[in-house]
Amino acid sequence: MTPEQQAVATANEAFYDALTNRDLPAMERLWFPADWAECVHPGGVALRSWDEVRDGWALIFTGASTVMVAATDVKVHLVGDIAWVSCTERLASTIDGRMTTSAAHATNIFVRHDDEWRLVLHHASPVPFVAPPDSGGLVN
Amino acid sequence: MTPEQQAVATANEAFYDALTNRDLPAMERLWFPADWAECVHPGGVALRSWDEVRDGWALIFTGASTVMVAATDVKVHLVGDIAWVSCTERLASTIDGRMTTSAAHATNIFVRHDDEWRLVLHHASPVPFVAPPDSGGLVN
Repeated sequence: MTPEQQAVATANEAFYDALTNRDLPAMERLWFPADWAECVHPGGVALRSWDEVRDGWALIFTGASTVMVAATDVKVHLVGDIAWVSCTERLASTIDGRMTTSAAHATNIFVRHDDEWRLVLHHASPVPFVAPPDSGGLVN
Repeated sequence: MTPEQQAVATANEAFYDALTNRDLPAMERLWFPADWAECVHPGGVALRSWDEVRDGWALIFTGASTVMVAATDVKVHLVGDIAWVSCTERLASTIDGRMTTSAAHATNIFVRHDDEWRLVLHHASPVPFVAPPDSGGLVN
């Protein structure tokens, strides 16, 4: 990765940290608060405009379930002041003490603003669960 | 829409026409054949690189089911030589003479190359079926 791509990858990690930590202020810093910002949660319809996107995160963060998310197979592509990340999200959700795992594919689009990469689009969709690369096929 | 956005919307329509018409040569003209091109079909994992993406379309176009796709709620955003489209895909699929309908949300990223907008990323994911805007709630 180039240093520029690395900066995008770091912003992408910060996004998943904010999600895992249910950190709404961090989400607010990470997103570019435009009326054309957009967020699609797995299986959901598109939330359009920063107000809707922010309300969506607020709802998720006050809900009963907690989630840990790790991004794997991260690819970063960059043209000028736009970058997009494609990755597999591995999710461990806990509701009422019961843990389940799932996987999603995500497309995340970032714009460079004042030398910072800010998220403007997050599109995540469920995928069949895939074994981790080092499991030797034992885990699925 | 600005004329630039309109050009992107036209390329987006051409993509859904190629899909409906099972037109592989049209797909080949529409996509930018990079190794970082990417395609995620509803419920599927990411196909990465133009070779994989193209093989995916070839497989779909030789399959038994036909599909008609119309893009609605089309939003185009453009920064420099990159544009992305967000839309709802309304799909009517026919397998063995039996028709079913479904809906998907799509993110399509285009790059401007030689004054033409070429697709580099298509990410579609299933969404709950939504009534058409003019149905008065009668259709669902």
